[in-house]
Amino acid sequence: MGQMTIKDVARRAGVSFQTVSLVLNHPEKVARTTRETIEAAMRDLEFVPSLAARSLRKKPSRSIACVFAVGARPGDADGLVQRADEGLLLQAFATVTDQHGYTLIHRRWCRDDPDGLSRITGLVSEARVDGIVVFADQRDDPLIGLLQAKRFPFVVFGLDMPGAHCAVRAERDAIYEAVRYLARTGSRSICFFKGERDGRRTPTVAERFRGYREALAEAGLPLRDDLVVPCDWTSESGHRATLRLLDRPDRPDAILAADDRVAFGVLKALHDRGVRVPGAIRVVGFDNCVQSAFTIPSLTSIEGPTLEMVRFAFATLVEVVEGTRGPDDLAQRQFPTRLVVRDSTGSTGRAQL
Amino acid sequence: MGQMTIKDVARRAGVSFQTVSLVLNHPEKVARTTRETIEAAMRDLEFVPSLAARSLRKKPSRSIACVFAVGARPGDADGLVQRADEGLLLQAFATVTDQHGYTLIHRRWCRDDPDGLSRITGLVSEARVDGIVVFADQRDDPLIGLLQAKRFPFVVFGLDMPGAHCAVRAERDAIYEAVRYLARTGSRSICFFKGERDGRRTPTVAERFRGYREALAEAGLPLRDDLVVPCDWTSESGHRATLRLLDRPDRPDAILAADDRVAFGVLKALHDRGVRVPGAIRVVGFDNCVQSAFTIPSLTSIEGPTLEMVRFAFATLVEVVEGTRGPDDLAQRQFPTRLVVRDSTGSTGRAQL
Repeated sequence: MGQMTIKDVARRAGVSFQTVSLVLNHPEKVARTTRETIEAAMRDLEFVPSLAARSLRKKPSRSIACVFAVGARPGDADGLVQRADEGLLLQAFATVTDQHGYTLIHRRWCRDDPDGLSRITGLVSEARVDGIVVFADQRDDPLIGLLQAKRFPFVVFGLDMPGAHCAVRAERDAIYEAVRYLARTGSRSICFFKGERDGRRTPTVAERFRGYREALAEAGLPLRDDLVVPCDWTSESGHRATLRLLDRPDRPDAILAADDRVAFGVLKALHDRGVRVPGAIRVVGFDNCVQSAFTIPSLTSIEGPTLEMVRFAFATLVEVVEGTRGPDDLAQRQFPTRLVVRDSTGSTGRAQL
Repeated sequence: MGQMTIKDVARRAGVSFQTVSLVLNHPEKVARTTRETIEAAMRDLEFVPSLAARSLRKKPSRSIACVFAVGARPGDADGLVQRADEGLLLQAFATVTDQHGYTLIHRRWCRDDPDGLSRITGLVSEARVDGIVVFADQRDDPLIGLLQAKRFPFVVFGLDMPGAHCAVRAERDAIYEAVRYLARTGSRSICFFKGERDGRRTPTVAERFRGYREALAEAGLPLRDDLVVPCDWTSESGHRATLRLLDRPDRPDAILAADDRVAFGVLKALHDRGVRVPGAIRVVGFDNCVQSAFTIPSLTSIEGPTLEMVRFAFATLVEVVEGTRGPDDLAQRQFPTRLVVRDSTGSTGRAQL
């Protein structure tokens, strides 16, 4: 039997939603017989009051937190760990929460900060936020585990997470479509830059790799280990990996960069070595960030519907907080992406324009 | 006589800081004679209890809000107004506030949103935040006026604001140094892209223009109206303005772009028209964003100490909130910038490398 909500208890006991809430909050205010009926229904349904239900009893804060997992602890030295997508996502969440009269709290979470977890869960237990949107790379992220164990209202953004509400891009389809496009327009040795953080591959990248493998197979192209290249999510990494690639005797004719920032480093390295784009090597990014139309040559990229995903994640979190969506009714949506073709894959040979 | 703090009142009345706070909060708990002495001191000093002082009486929220003025209301259609610097600044503030056990709230403020102001000031009046960091372009921003009138604790970031605590870059010196460098290394017709938002020039850009004018005069170069070009803060705008510039018979030999994103559009337009950088035209950006080392050619830019400014703004706001810094003791610091020279101004003629 799955997790029950207080709505299930109310239905079972034949009372209103509010009466169940009152029993949880102020049992002394409820007539004894009614209370006993409700308590029996709770036992029958193996109901455990969750924080989602508790938030119905407390005054809601009308605040949510966006918590970003960042690889390493920032600020040891004078550094600042930048996450490429964090700024855009925060701007989108601030816009959407404000439209709905909600306040947005921004937190970063570093695995190597011993107090990091308790500071974040403190936000919920002190009722400073009603729920959390988690931006994590790995399914074993301790924050997700803790939120699940404590039954905090949360939604995962950008990571396909079994058993949790989540909003994800169709990563497999995105890369499948890009590889199919490259193969159909003449590429034969397509290099896959697989992004890693802290040296680990992520479920998101595993999905992308599946799209790469399946599209190659469909196109009758071999899956070559030497064309699968690790990198992190920076331009530096894209630049370095590309220079190494160019030192090999057997150069690829296309590169799928892990994201647009990595692609900027790829384009730079190819330019530094005098390799024509798209004439000799074609390049595809991921994210379609605002600068991509202005690289030299302009960058073909993959665009996800960020604002639509943000709206879905926020709406889902509000449903969880308000108790109208229980853990048996998972909201897990995959959002399709779109390939935006520009000059870096132009197949006409007009090259650098 | 300037604004008095409760510390001034305490000194005048010869009592402790805490006793004044108690009179403001729970006058019934203070002996009548003591209370009357303190009330007399308040009258003598024309003391008005401010929210800063109130926050000493209330349980502090240990939260601050970063509020960004965005030009137009986002989300009418399906759009999202992006501010180039917002992501980096939020990441820096999240890091610094977290290090100090503070919670960061992120808000955007649009002039054409009728409820925008009250939603932001509601954060303070409901004691959800102790103070606000304001990111605004114009000194007449209604948010700043309201915060001043209500004596809310706030610090302005990035705008030199008379009468308010603020953290600013030395914008005049930054451009002065860049123009002097260009003039000394051979540029004679240096174009100044003056950034505007909503068609208005900002005090920040006025400061930059002063640096431009003074450096030209020092170098014996004329100030030419035709070399002062309006643009907004996007790559599109930089691209468009540069194409128009190239249609003129009398081309400049250097361009100071309003920021790096504008410079990306400038580089793209020059490349599209086959103009060599730095051989024919040299280009300088502003902000030194992470992509600038990977443009083609790599971009000379101006770097401000963002994290240092964020730390200063946060520390100042905490002082204001805690009542240890009053309005007579303004914290206004200008932070020096640094010119990062790369290939887009390389004077050796190695050109595109």
